[in-house]
Order: sequence, then structure tokens, then C-alpha cells
Amino acid sequence: MTSLPRLGFIGLGLMGRHMAGHLVQAGYTVTVHNRSRGAVAELVAQGAHAAAGPKETAANSDVVITMLPDSPDVEAVALGSNGILAGARRGLIHIDMSTIAPPAARRIAAAEEQAGLENLDAPVSGGDIGAKNATLTIMAGGKQDVFDQCMPIFETLGKKITRIGDHGTGQIAKACNQIMVAAQMVALGELLIFAQKAGADPRRVVEAIQAGAAQCWTLDNKPPRLFAGNRSPGFKASMQLKDLNIIINSAKTYGVPLPTTAVNAQLYNALIAAGLGDLDNSAIIGVLEELAHVQLEIGD
Amino acid sequence: MTSLPRLGFIGLGLMGRHMAGHLVQAGYTVTVHNRSRGAVAELVAQGAHAAAGPKETAANSDVVITMLPDSPDVEAVALGSNGILAGARRGLIHIDMSTIAPPAARRIAAAEEQAGLENLDAPVSGGDIGAKNATLTIMAGGKQDVFDQCMPIFETLGKKITRIGDHGTGQIAKACNQIMVAAQMVALGELLIFAQKAGADPRRVVEAIQAGAAQCWTLDNKPPRLFAGNRSPGFKASMQLKDLNIIINSAKTYGVPLPTTAVNAQLYNALIAAGLGDLDNSAIIGVLEELAHVQLEIGD
Repeated sequence: MTSLPRLGFIGLGLMGRHMAGHLVQAGYTVTVHNRSRGAVAELVAQGAHAAAGPKETAANSDVVITMLPDSPDVEAVALGSNGILAGARRGLIHIDMSTIAPPAARRIAAAEEQAGLENLDAPVSGGDIGAKNATLTIMAGGKQDVFDQCMPIFETLGKKITRIGDHGTGQIAKACNQIMVAAQMVALGELLIFAQKAGADPRRVVEAIQAGAAQCWTLDNKPPRLFAGNRSPGFKASMQLKDLNIIINSAKTYGVPLPTTAVNAQLYNALIAAGLGDLDNSAIIGVLEELAHVQLEIGD
Repeated sequence: MTSLPRLGFIGLGLMGRHMAGHLVQAGYTVTVHNRSRGAVAELVAQGAHAAAGPKETAANSDVVITMLPDSPDVEAVALGSNGILAGARRGLIHIDMSTIAPPAARRIAAAEEQAGLENLDAPVSGGDIGAKNATLTIMAGGKQDVFDQCMPIFETLGKKITRIGDHGTGQIAKACNQIMVAAQMVALGELLIFAQKAGADPRRVVEAIQAGAAQCWTLDNKPPRLFAGNRSPGFKASMQLKDLNIIINSAKTYGVPLPTTAVNAQLYNALIAAGLGDLDNSAIIGVLEELAHVQLEIGD
């Protein structure tokens, strides 16, 4: 690839539409596909080309990026009868930037490589804001030379870009990321409710502890939103549960008991059962409010 | 207090001995007491005076600091027949910098105030290194004017000093700190073992995720030690469990169910049951190694 590769982009959701937009703006020829057509029209207005489906997207591309909800979506789009593999020339690179199960990522990579395609799993962290500002953290698995070839694409989308190792290891890193993120979110909820009900101002507590060993991204970023009564996403609680379920299932595959992550998954399960899955992942505090029969006080 | 107040310091353990040393070096007259006498001799060599017990320490002091293992120790030293209250003049300030149960802190403060003494609860975060380098995070509860009066003492010992609110709120903040610290420690153990057993290099995973939403003090500081095979404290796992037990008991007092902290407490319980309580709190990964029948790989 001496000139710019022709790109395909499948999955123009909350994050995908921003990512595809950055690639168009960077000068790539981008063919897009999405199940609901509104997002396609948006991207076409920015200069992208519309395809009828994944197969046609692949037929017009050297590199196809997928940004889809879950493992079955990616398996269908990659390997289905109207999928990427059905439309691809040999040597096409499929970069899956969705968050899916590591064993599924490995299955898809194996099937594509057997058919002469290349594959990278490259899930991201940073949410819709990271997608919008092109500041995503990208964790990749696959061959080093394929990763190197795709670096200009990654650099158009993100800031911290790391190849972990072979196929699936990007998804494993993303799973590890979500183990820690969920732990921080639940701990934040528990400590805010504990502080308030025990008689200490949660705002003062956060201020005191965020300078020490409790410091974390969640403690730096989420309390101001919660104290303002803002539980809108951000990163949806339903997606956090999806990721936790991936982890719990993969943990079984790889023989790794995860006692605390399992409890955190069940707390998100409770949040979704309460009909609150469209809120931010920090809204997990709502489950703890229910359990403690109290509401976090709002305001200054 | 226009001249420097005369200080008492009771509890010359891993942290207390450094803290008392800083106060001596800052020019305070410091009377010390400790059950085991070796540490007393050390401080006397630095210029402190030795007392026979808490009562005699209080009799020679305007401000008495306690730095003791747990609630019953502080209650005995403060309110016992040979305690601070028994030896104190009216107006003496007792600063308890131990980590104890918030309800116990409130009981002690009430008893001392009724006898004409002043009280602050002012637990710390930062471990023996923070004590040694005078960089402790200090979370205080009690009257504003008493806190203000003691600020020069706190500034000799720590960096980030916050008054949360009334009596007990320093201990509540410390409990909140430990909810988050334990969550990070357990999540770190789970994700490192998950990464390794799923086939991704835990070092690369840590490098990738510490730039994003998973970022935290624990992820910044503990992996290099674990990868080097170093599980020595730092902050002892047995003390982490002590603090978690304080939280679980207080959570019952204040009516705050803490499902994930409860699991984390049981994992530390398992670590202590395995005879590993003298290791660092990051050694909780050992329990997860047991569960997954694997050991974290050491070396570069």
C-alpha cells in the first residue's frame, strides 16, 4: 500500500459514526454500511460512499473496520453469506474494533486467515467522547507487520495505541480494562452511599481521598456528574454489563475464577433489571441506593 | 498556644515511629509511649522523652497523638484507668491518627469532650513510606477551630490535609478510601491472572490500559513489584482486612449494604487464612492464583 488504502467501515453507532468521520476527513476513500440508514446518509454527506451490505463494502476496500455491538454481530458480518469474507480479495485486512469475546475474536481471525485475509482485533476504550475527539485508547492483537501497516489508521482514531500480542489479545486487554473500570464504578457507588449515610459529606470525602492510594480515573471524573444529578451516558450501563458478561464467559473458557467481577456483573444485572441500562455506567450507584434505601444528595 | 504545644505520642509502630521522629525534628517537645520499649529507646535517642504510660504522657502534654492498631486499643489508651483522660488537664487535645471504626471514634470524642478535652479523628493514608517522607494524606473529623489549631502538627506529617466535618468523619473518609483501595487491589489481581491464563502478556496489558478509564494508583504502582516477585509490604494485607472489617461492621451500624466490599473482605480473609497476612495488600493476587491454579509469571 503506497497510496492510501481504500477503507470500509461497518457499524455507524454512537462511536462508529465519529470514527468513520475522522477517516473521511483524513482523506481516505471510505465505503460505509450500517443497518439503520440514517447514519449512512450522514457519512455520505461528509464524503463517504454507501454500500448495500458487508459483502459490497469488502469488495470496494483494502481494509474493513467493524464497530459492532457484540460477538454474534461480528461473526455474522465477517463470516456470513453476505459478509466481509464473501466479498473480500485475498490480503484484505479486517480490523475489528468492537468489544467482543476473546475466543470469538480468535475464531474469526482463524477463519479469515484460512481464506487468505488478514485480521486484527483492536477494541478501544474512551467512549463516545474519545471517538469524537480521536483520543481513543486502542488495544490490538494480531501480526506485528499487519499492525504496523494499519498504524496510520489507528493514529487517525486514537492516542495510546498498543499491540499486546497475537490474535485475541486486544480483546483480552479490553476485558482486563473492564474488570478494573467496573471495580472502580461499584466502589465509587458504595463509598458515596456509605459516606452520606454515615454522616460525612461525600464531596469532602472524594476531595480528601482522590489525592492518595484511592486515586483513579473514575474518582477524578464521575463524582461531579453524580453530584449534579447527571446519570446520562458516557458509557452505557447496558454495554458495561455486556462487557462483564464477555469477561465472565471467557473466564470460564480460560479457567479463571473472578469472584469480585462476578458480583459486579450481578450488580449491573440488577441495574438493567430496574430498566436503567441506558444510563451511564456510574449509575450503578442506583442499585446501592435501592439496597440502602437512600438517594445520593444532589447539589452543591 | 503562642509557643509550641508540648506533644505526646503513643504508638511507635511502623508508621508512628517516623511520625514522632518528624515532630521531634520539627522542634516540638515530644513525650512518647509504646508497649514494646525498643521503639521508645530509638525516639529518646532522637531527643524525645519517655513516659511510663498513656496517663503520664498526657500529664506532660498539651496535645496527645495516638497511632494504634484498632478501636479497642484506642479506647483503652484514651479512656482506661491509666489512659489519656486520667492524666489530662482540661483543654488537652487528643488527636487519634489510628484507623478505627467511625462509631468508636465518635464514642471516644464524646467521652473526652464531656470531661473537658478536645478530640480530633485524623486517620492517614500513604503507608510507612508516606510516614517516613512526611507525605501522608490526612482526613480529619472534629471542630474547625481545634483542627485549625493543630494544622502546624499535621503539616509536619503530611501533604494533603482535609477536614471532612464533625467527629468520626475522618474515619468515614478513611473507610471510603479503603473501599476503593481494596477494589483496585482485587481487580488488579483478577485482571493479571485473567490476562496471563487467556494468553496475553500481563505487562503489555497493564501498559495499554493504564492510560485510559482503568487508570488508578494501584495500576500505576503495584504491577512492577508483582512482576518482580516482590510481595513484601508496603501496606500489610492483615491491616487491609482489619480496615475492611471496620467498614463491614460500620456498614451494618449505618445501614449500608456493600456487596462488593464484602466479597473483597472475604478474599483478604482467605489470604490471611493462608498465613500470608504479613505480605503487601497487593498479594491478594495469591488468592486468585490459588483459585485459578496458576502463578503469575515473574521476570522481564
